[in-house]
Amino acid sequence: MKINGKHYTAIWQKPDNNQIIQIIDQTKLPFSFEIKNLTSVNDIYIAIKEMEVRGAPLIGITAAFGIYIACIEASRSDNFDEHLQSSADKLLNSRPTAVNLFHAIDSMLTEIEKENDISKKINAALNTAQKYFNSEIENFKLIGKAGLPLIENISSKKKGKTVNILTHCNAGWIACGDYGTATSPIYHAFDKGINIHVWVSETRPRNQGSRLTAWELGMHGIPYTIIADNTGGHLMQNDLVDIVIVGSDRTAKNGDVANKIGTYMKALAAMDNNIPFYVALPKSTIDTNLENGNGIEIEQRNADEIKYIEGKLNGKIEKILLTPKNANAANYAFDITPAKLITGLITESGICEANEINIKKLFD
Amino acid sequence: MKINGKHYTAIWQKPDNNQIIQIIDQTKLPFSFEIKNLTSVNDIYIAIKEMEVRGAPLIGITAAFGIYIACIEASRSDNFDEHLQSSADKLLNSRPTAVNLFHAIDSMLTEIEKENDISKKINAALNTAQKYFNSEIENFKLIGKAGLPLIENISSKKKGKTVNILTHCNAGWIACGDYGTATSPIYHAFDKGINIHVWVSETRPRNQGSRLTAWELGMHGIPYTIIADNTGGHLMQNDLVDIVIVGSDRTAKNGDVANKIGTYMKALAAMDNNIPFYVALPKSTIDTNLENGNGIEIEQRNADEIKYIEGKLNGKIEKILLTPKNANAANYAFDITPAKLITGLITESGICEANEINIKKLFD
Repeated sequence: MKINGKHYTAIWQKPDNNQIIQIIDQTKLPFSFEIKNLTSVNDIYIAIKEMEVRGAPLIGITAAFGIYIACIEASRSDNFDEHLQSSADKLLNSRPTAVNLFHAIDSMLTEIEKENDISKKINAALNTAQKYFNSEIENFKLIGKAGLPLIENISSKKKGKTVNILTHCNAGWIACGDYGTATSPIYHAFDKGINIHVWVSETRPRNQGSRLTAWELGMHGIPYTIIADNTGGHLMQNDLVDIVIVGSDRTAKNGDVANKIGTYMKALAAMDNNIPFYVALPKSTIDTNLENGNGIEIEQRNADEIKYIEGKLNGKIEKILLTPKNANAANYAFDITPAKLITGLITESGICEANEINIKKLFD
Repeated sequence: MKINGKHYTAIWQKPDNNQIIQIIDQTKLPFSFEIKNLTSVNDIYIAIKEMEVRGAPLIGITAAFGIYIACIEASRSDNFDEHLQSSADKLLNSRPTAVNLFHAIDSMLTEIEKENDISKKINAALNTAQKYFNSEIENFKLIGKAGLPLIENISSKKKGKTVNILTHCNAGWIACGDYGTATSPIYHAFDKGINIHVWVSETRPRNQGSRLTAWELGMHGIPYTIIADNTGGHLMQNDLVDIVIVGSDRTAKNGDVANKIGTYMKALAAMDNNIPFYVALPKSTIDTNLENGNGIEIEQRNADEIKYIEGKLNGKIEKILLTPKNANAANYAFDITPAKLITGLITESGICEANEINIKKLFD
């Protein structure tokens, strides 16, 4: 999408040297916009581990390009296969819960193995990484096209008055490479000239809403307002939200959705106020082996993410203490929104109801 | 309640000089514990305006002592009545939405007017302020005694295993003088030796939960854990909450409750998981002229409270930017929890269901 009028993706190969991978350093957003060069497997590893790139899809894409870089490094070593495998192992360990990471690396290695010649292996790696990137972005574009009519219909019913969309966390283009999941229908609607406004839930504790979603919507020119996470219910009670669209980290085959902590309470408020609640996701995040949400283990992250917060002070990014120094804090990263609260799933294959029969049809 | 083993109230008269009012400067909590002397009407005005004292009940108590100080100042002026009235007007303007402030000042002036002699007026002011303070605290104590059996019963059913209580914002002793509203049953249960643990919702944007509730519970020795506001629903889904107790800023005669933004979504989650949801409040916050929650206007505060946050860095309290510099943000301070989601109201006259008939009986 656009940054100050210019089109960007969240990762790309340097035009004059495709062995240099360039990313937007997301740890600096929204305070400064910095492009970073990744020229080694170690650079790629650090970028994923330190969350310079984040969001499951973008992590997968970055790892795919990482395997391409690994092939180049391996070609300079004594043992190509051994060097490549140890690079792959390193990248696999860059983030703990990493289905996309695993899939991306696995499909890269499969294609590379098919070739015998080292230069052909490098070529296969390059082609596979680029194909993987393009097919991911194509899916996010299709999610937007599938979700667009939902917003168009509301706009028609409201006779062109502003459609108010609420989202949570960052399921945006910056997490996906381009378009995003929850944001893709939003960008498609805006680019089509529909009158929209987005309520951006700040998304404590890591504030992906107020740091990233606000930044990317603002850069693209979409009107938005940041709210405390506590505020969604009040807005819904007062006819200030027409539709909720969120992303998903993992979805069970019955339609239960794991997403950023706080999603469940927003879904309850939407149900209580008859507001449509949609989850936008690529089909790859639907786990058809998983009966329901009970099978999803909820990651507990470091309590310091609750106790400290990062922000800008006197031109520098600083971290300040918010609580009593020795306070106990708990940091559950996700929650489960039961399928009964979900109006529909927006996927690259269209919209479906969040239940086993309809989800199964998506895969036929 | 206790601070490091010693009993405190949130405001008191200096033992060796009752014309000096002492407070705990709440703007410094939880980062440092500072006692401040208030020796003039202007000091009292600043303390209320700058939120060195906060919480509707404590504001009322502080204003009552402020009128006592005003009488002393007036006695040194040419025109006692005129001076007193202008002090009262000044204090009335210290905070915008101030029912307690109004009631406290009004009842002080009524008692002072009954006396003709200036020294008798000063005495009446002193006695009335002390009585007002004591009767407020007595009510908060009674709220605790009324709510205690709820926690005792859960403890019995769980055979002494930890009772997990969730609260939101700060309806604590530090806001009330002593005991608090939502916290009063908690302190009573803990002091009786019941095994409890409190989930403290941080309460964005002003973080009264993580700054004040965490501080006061910790100082009294009560086990607690701070959570992001997004987390309540997940805990309730997973049997980690036995009861929710919150305070109220204003309650309508049908039982609809205005309280800190975010209360409504917690009530929805409690209902969805069959968890009792109680509101603890002095009867003075029930507005028997108000049909229902629709009549309560929701204050919108400065958006900078969303965009910036205060915390401790290198020994100093600093304010950092959390969002894009020019971000739009909205800051709704309260929401309305409909009576249908409330299990009961805990008042100084006992517990009642949140409906018009039962609330009316409270006042008989």
